[in-house]
Amino acid sequence: MNFADRLQAAIRAKGSPACVGFDPLIGQLPAELRAAADGDPAATAKALTAFGRGVIQAVAPLVPAIKINIAFFEPYYEHGIRAYHDLVGAAHQAGLVVIGDVKRADIGHTSTQYAIAQLDGSGAGVDPQTIPDAITVNPYFGIDGVQPFIDVARKHGRGLFVLVQTSNPSAAEFQGLVLPDGLTVCQHVARLVEKWACGDGFIGDYGYSSIGAVVSPRDLESTVRIRELMPHCVFLVPGFGAQGRTADEVAKCFKPDGTGAIVAASRSVIFACNEPAYRDIPDWREAVRTACADFVTAIRSVVG
Amino acid sequence: MNFADRLQAAIRAKGSPACVGFDPLIGQLPAELRAAADGDPAATAKALTAFGRGVIQAVAPLVPAIKINIAFFEPYYEHGIRAYHDLVGAAHQAGLVVIGDVKRADIGHTSTQYAIAQLDGSGAGVDPQTIPDAITVNPYFGIDGVQPFIDVARKHGRGLFVLVQTSNPSAAEFQGLVLPDGLTVCQHVARLVEKWACGDGFIGDYGYSSIGAVVSPRDLESTVRIRELMPHCVFLVPGFGAQGRTADEVAKCFKPDGTGAIVAASRSVIFACNEPAYRDIPDWREAVRTACADFVTAIRSVVG
Repeated sequence: MNFADRLQAAIRAKGSPACVGFDPLIGQLPAELRAAADGDPAATAKALTAFGRGVIQAVAPLVPAIKINIAFFEPYYEHGIRAYHDLVGAAHQAGLVVIGDVKRADIGHTSTQYAIAQLDGSGAGVDPQTIPDAITVNPYFGIDGVQPFIDVARKHGRGLFVLVQTSNPSAAEFQGLVLPDGLTVCQHVARLVEKWACGDGFIGDYGYSSIGAVVSPRDLESTVRIRELMPHCVFLVPGFGAQGRTADEVAKCFKPDGTGAIVAASRSVIFACNEPAYRDIPDWREAVRTACADFVTAIRSVVG
Repeated sequence: MNFADRLQAAIRAKGSPACVGFDPLIGQLPAELRAAADGDPAATAKALTAFGRGVIQAVAPLVPAIKINIAFFEPYYEHGIRAYHDLVGAAHQAGLVVIGDVKRADIGHTSTQYAIAQLDGSGAGVDPQTIPDAITVNPYFGIDGVQPFIDVARKHGRGLFVLVQTSNPSAAEFQGLVLPDGLTVCQHVARLVEKWACGDGFIGDYGYSSIGAVVSPRDLESTVRIRELMPHCVFLVPGFGAQGRTADEVAKCFKPDGTGAIVAASRSVIFACNEPAYRDIPDWREAVRTACADFVTAIRSVVG
């Protein structure tokens, strides 16, 4: 089954297009784990792994997918990379679809190396369970920086989410530049990604491609236009919760039938133990579970 | 001494703005090392380290800088990451300025994690010698995706090269889009990067900033325009040799006084043992040294 169909099946099985984002900052870990992360990269990576396993157990019954951001592991060097892949494996074991948020890209033959590392897993000495089902990639190089990822994704039935409209305040500084045809830079990227998404073998039984897009609904009008430009792409929508996207904004990422997007919440779920609404729950895992259940409910109300 | 001045001093000391790019493909390694890289990630990373140390010893007397691309290490997971940082350390020990070609970027608080991992090195358990003097970053997020890298670079006297015009054939598909003001997307990025480069504390004694740009001279007219738009930025120019940039094209990346750029050659130097001109040299290290000396001569003739 290709990635697009696995993702849609998982969303239907769990009854909610919700994805937990795992972006763990050491300073926000539950106290017992923060103490164990004593500054040494190996000890810190071990604490991250323990935290990740707890989060995965808490959220796996509730959501179809987890997005694990490798940036939060890289500061711990080889120990961090091992922890990242261990957690990808643990999330697979718990039945989750796993998105590796790695935002890689380079020129073609170099992207091939990134694609092998982040999306292949068929090499000797590699457990394919520790490789995500899909990764995020950056479109700045144009198609031949993305093509190696497309090729590896196709070969292994995995997927991509290409950055289109990001959630940071200055995104418009560049992505929002208006071209003579009236499209913004990121809408132009949207049109390119839709073309890539319709390539041979990517459209699954539900009508969606294994190539999706990262779309943050920071500008309502632009989001509506991007949704029109990319009928075959699932949107990975970041920033529900901590980054402050509202239900109305997020709703525009879905099609009228309630499909076409998966919404991620990160800090508001995984660091529930620090949130006023949940910090009185004695066990941090239970706080994560409760915050995740509330997130799922909120997303269900968005898609109706 | 800030990065801009360290780089200029090294270029003057070696008498050539040449940089060796270390992009090692296993299939092209010298036979003895290819045999050792038997598919197992740990063994392969060990072969890459041995190859890298040989290349560093061969080129360190000839060039001011080496650019090490992390993509070629990531397929070997924790072993690859360890090898990458070991080679950064070995290159520093050999007196080279080291550019980590990592092309990272994300939204602000996530870029902070990438910046800590790739450009800080002040944490417990980290040898700062194994952290590069500068890294490459991707501008797709706008300033707040780059700011954390700027902050870490300033704090530690390190530098950045922001992607502006890349060397791949499809780069123009996106970077070449023309905006209503007549600038292309990548020229607009050039203008933004020049602004960032002139930020507090980055301009060194030679008049250049520690924030430079990756500029491939794929389009002569565009390169001339970009050179004008970024008077304070050193250009890191990839693709001399294997990627086929000619001397005339590369010359446009320099100012009339012969400063303002550093040119990288990768496969044509590090895999000299496979090149017709050098493959009869019995020792692959000697082939690398000879190819590197020819590369330095070629660059000297470009800058006059």
